[in-house]
Amino acid sequence: MDRDAYYMGLALEEARASAAMGEVPIGCVIVDEDEIIGRGHNQSESMDSALAHAEIMAIDEASKKKGRRIGSTLYVTVEPCPMCMGAILNARVDRLVIGAENPRFGAAGSVVNLAAFRAFNHSVDVRRGVLEEECGEMMRTFFKSLRP
Amino acid sequence: MDRDAYYMGLALEEARASAAMGEVPIGCVIVDEDEIIGRGHNQSESMDSALAHAEIMAIDEASKKKGRRIGSTLYVTVEPCPMCMGAILNARVDRLVIGAENPRFGAAGSVVNLAAFRAFNHSVDVRRGVLEEECGEMMRTFFKSLRP
Repeated sequence: MDRDAYYMGLALEEARASAAMGEVPIGCVIVDEDEIIGRGHNQSESMDSALAHAEIMAIDEASKKKGRRIGSTLYVTVEPCPMCMGAILNARVDRLVIGAENPRFGAAGSVVNLAAFRAFNHSVDVRRGVLEEECGEMMRTFFKSLRP
Repeated sequence: MDRDAYYMGLALEEARASAAMGEVPIGCVIVDEDEIIGRGHNQSESMDSALAHAEIMAIDEASKKKGRRIGSTLYVTVEPCPMCMGAILNARVDRLVIGAENPRFGAAGSVVNLAAFRAFNHSVDVRRGVLEEECGEMMRTFFKSLRP
């Protein structure tokens, strides 16, 4: 199996943990030479914090091992928002692998493309659409469940 | 004295705490109806984390009091980077007051203007140039001190 699909599958497991808590189901894993150095799932509601996105949780964990420049590949089930995309640039993530698109808040091309601003001292390679159907379906199921 | 200048002075005190630690001197305070609900100073080096910017530290503290939508006015001595500007939008900060410009990484207009993307569900009122000279001078002094 495609290595990226394998790790995106683990990010989907993280997203399932969010769904189980009634949170928007987004998950993230960070991989450095086949070692997982960070995991995170969205916990904005339960932590009651706008900072508690999957990518921030995962980068926080990875920074404890690798310091503030983590490099590595970050897998996330949904295209990052501006905050998370900014954190990805600040942490000097080498490569970003995205599952589903985020047409409302996506900052890796959907609404704005921060990855393309070379002014920000670092650029990140982006691959999109890995397990896109599964990642998107998890979001659709969640939002459908909110409707009366 | 101008109320904004008063609170920017407190943000400058936070920036001084960063400078004393050998960190890039950026400070932040968050004010909700004349009550300070968050303070932060850049600690990227000492915490060895790309997330440890002044605004993130202050929003984290404010969220513990007000939850994930903090509203309020956020004072920061230097224009926010994309990560912090994204966090400001996610946390639904009502008003952003900036000291010095950040021509390299500024995401409130200097390199990109995330505040202007109405697509991001929330817009924030921005005032610039409050104690600009003092805020900028602190940065210049710091970077000068790094040169041999």
